[in-house]
Amino acid sequence: MAYPRQSALELSGFKMRQAGISKRVKKLTVSAIKEMMHLAQGIPGVISLAQGTPTFLTPHSVRFELGQELMNNPQIGKYAPFAGLPVLKSAIASKLKRQHGIKVNSDTEILVTVGAMEAVAAAILTVVDPKDEVLIFSPGFPSHIMQIELAEGRPIFIPLNEAAGWTLDLAAFKNKISARTKAVVICNPNNPTGSLLTEQDLRSIAVLAKKNGFWIITDEPYDFLVYDRKAHFSILQISEIRNQLIACYSFSKEYAMSGFRVGYIYAAADVVNQMLKVHDALALAAATPSQYAATLALTHGTREVSYFVKEFAKRRALICRRLDQLPDLFSYQTPAGTYYIFVKIIPPFEDYQFALDMLKEAKVAAVPGSAFGPTGKRHLRFCFAQTEDVINEAFNRIEKWWSNKKMSKSK
Amino acid sequence: MAYPRQSALELSGFKMRQAGISKRVKKLTVSAIKEMMHLAQGIPGVISLAQGTPTFLTPHSVRFELGQELMNNPQIGKYAPFAGLPVLKSAIASKLKRQHGIKVNSDTEILVTVGAMEAVAAAILTVVDPKDEVLIFSPGFPSHIMQIELAEGRPIFIPLNEAAGWTLDLAAFKNKISARTKAVVICNPNNPTGSLLTEQDLRSIAVLAKKNGFWIITDEPYDFLVYDRKAHFSILQISEIRNQLIACYSFSKEYAMSGFRVGYIYAAADVVNQMLKVHDALALAAATPSQYAATLALTHGTREVSYFVKEFAKRRALICRRLDQLPDLFSYQTPAGTYYIFVKIIPPFEDYQFALDMLKEAKVAAVPGSAFGPTGKRHLRFCFAQTEDVINEAFNRIEKWWSNKKMSKSK
Repeated sequence: MAYPRQSALELSGFKMRQAGISKRVKKLTVSAIKEMMHLAQGIPGVISLAQGTPTFLTPHSVRFELGQELMNNPQIGKYAPFAGLPVLKSAIASKLKRQHGIKVNSDTEILVTVGAMEAVAAAILTVVDPKDEVLIFSPGFPSHIMQIELAEGRPIFIPLNEAAGWTLDLAAFKNKISARTKAVVICNPNNPTGSLLTEQDLRSIAVLAKKNGFWIITDEPYDFLVYDRKAHFSILQISEIRNQLIACYSFSKEYAMSGFRVGYIYAAADVVNQMLKVHDALALAAATPSQYAATLALTHGTREVSYFVKEFAKRRALICRRLDQLPDLFSYQTPAGTYYIFVKIIPPFEDYQFALDMLKEAKVAAVPGSAFGPTGKRHLRFCFAQTEDVINEAFNRIEKWWSNKKMSKSK
Repeated sequence: MAYPRQSALELSGFKMRQAGISKRVKKLTVSAIKEMMHLAQGIPGVISLAQGTPTFLTPHSVRFELGQELMNNPQIGKYAPFAGLPVLKSAIASKLKRQHGIKVNSDTEILVTVGAMEAVAAAILTVVDPKDEVLIFSPGFPSHIMQIELAEGRPIFIPLNEAAGWTLDLAAFKNKISARTKAVVICNPNNPTGSLLTEQDLRSIAVLAKKNGFWIITDEPYDFLVYDRKAHFSILQISEIRNQLIACYSFSKEYAMSGFRVGYIYAAADVVNQMLKVHDALALAAATPSQYAATLALTHGTREVSYFVKEFAKRRALICRRLDQLPDLFSYQTPAGTYYIFVKIIPPFEDYQFALDMLKEAKVAAVPGSAFGPTGKRHLRFCFAQTEDVINEAFNRIEKWWSNKKMSKSK
């Protein structure tokens, strides 16, 4: 059974053909994140705190040197090898060594993908059969729910503990494991709550995965973005689990290159060989210029990353201050990582309608919480990757809108 | 039931995990085209006439101006709107008007994809349910077979008539239509045979599709590449069928930009809205720099295209001359379009083993014919997109290898 979501596009009058459309697609909706973006584009002057696009430019040196490659490298316009450019795969292996201290074979254990999006889609299609159950945290990333449903698997939601800062309740996790459990999808730090799984959490999950024989699929585009000097522990560091792990990564956020659409997978060689079939049928290869850009980012884009993290920390402080000024509208848990904050709507408003009203009336886009799973009901996700000016203007609008709303209600 | 193919990678010792892998993926193989490429990369000095990559550079002006965009356009590194950049969608609409005289709504009827590969994958996942039958010509493009199987549909092969130049036998087509027929996939001109469907063929198929209510999915990356002043007729021009048509296009071959991974779909708006769900879950969007490159190609890459076509015509003449010199090894039908030629292996060799032997012993890569469907048995696909020097060297090697083979046999 599909997770019963609403569609903001359909609520706004988008027509969907029904005749002749496959059952798997009929029951899907476009991710609410893209839906809100799409609707926002149609409204002049809207401020979007919906999609998670950093405001930063891709590092100058990456763009400049890619321009040189475009003129001088005769291979730049041609298909890359379908598993990825060897030079990029080597640079990825070095990064994994540097960051996590692990040694991988860049020839056989790395697969370059069209962002982490294609990576996770390929992972799920490779391991999930119809009716298989896939564990996912709630709130969790809507695209993961869609990808599970695209493979005709069943998303099984493990509620996170909001009161404890959206942390893992291991008993709740164990409780959802069944004979049909095929995989768990882990996004750490979590999108949309920004909460972190601890090393102990991950070690416990690894033990459960080993004991019950399910796959661990990770999606970690925000592993670089953890605040307050907290450390990010990657499940990749638990060597005993590596044989049933498919770890997906992205260049989009860390190097401000979301538009380049490059990500990668680490998995055992005999798993990569299976995933190649899906990758070949879905995309053939990631764009060659983008793969060169990713190589350049890994070799000299690191300085910018620490600047990005500092800036995001300021923006997090700002959005928390602005939320504090709306205590009768929103409550929140401070995110430990990512540039998302997942707020509770205090008055009894349904979140899809609330988000659409806020979009049309206040001209601020955010993502309705139900899209992130049942625990997301009556919540909203704000992205604070925008500049401080934009965040301030968005909250000025929300404050004014909310105060008018209260006034007209009390009349 | 999956089309029972061999895997050149598995024949060569590639390990494939079986435990925990989905049934849909276990029964797939990587496209034999990519397999041969992959194997060829491991052998020094190999000449590959396997994958269809043009030797030409992407037009200079496209690469140069993209370099300017990289430095000057602050949006270049950021996610494009998931249906594609508006400027590119407009340019595509103009091209369709110019080329086929049809008017499309670029806002609602065009979807930009990661090459025609993602376009066809998304089309098939959007309309094909498990056990649905999808008609496909044999020989036909292996990735289409894989994409049908990925959606758990059944490829139903319509044999083309080799003796008549691999043309359509309409009676054979009608014969394969059943109550479960959900779609036909048409690649015109056909990959691997280079044969053309006539306007009359396409009108007949349109009548059958309307009468029996199945989708027409077209994949036309070679519509620009037709020889001998023959005209290419696109099914897009048959307005009565447009409501059940999903037409997929690519920039890869026409503009020598296979590495950029950009293609697009034309379909009715309420079909595009369904396909957006799949596109969102598989790729999110095509790479933004690639989309700018495609826009540049459409606005000023046209001069190069006529040069490419002239060059490919010379290479076609050359490969036919060289094949004529091996009359006891190969026979062929002259392709009317594309840069592929699908040759029959005259001696009684099995095509996978023949292709692997030719790769290892003659150091020339071609694609085994069985990968293109049952009618491809004991055939090979050669790509003649390489330079004349390379084609000559490949056939020098094949001639020498074949003459040694005959000698050692007669001993």
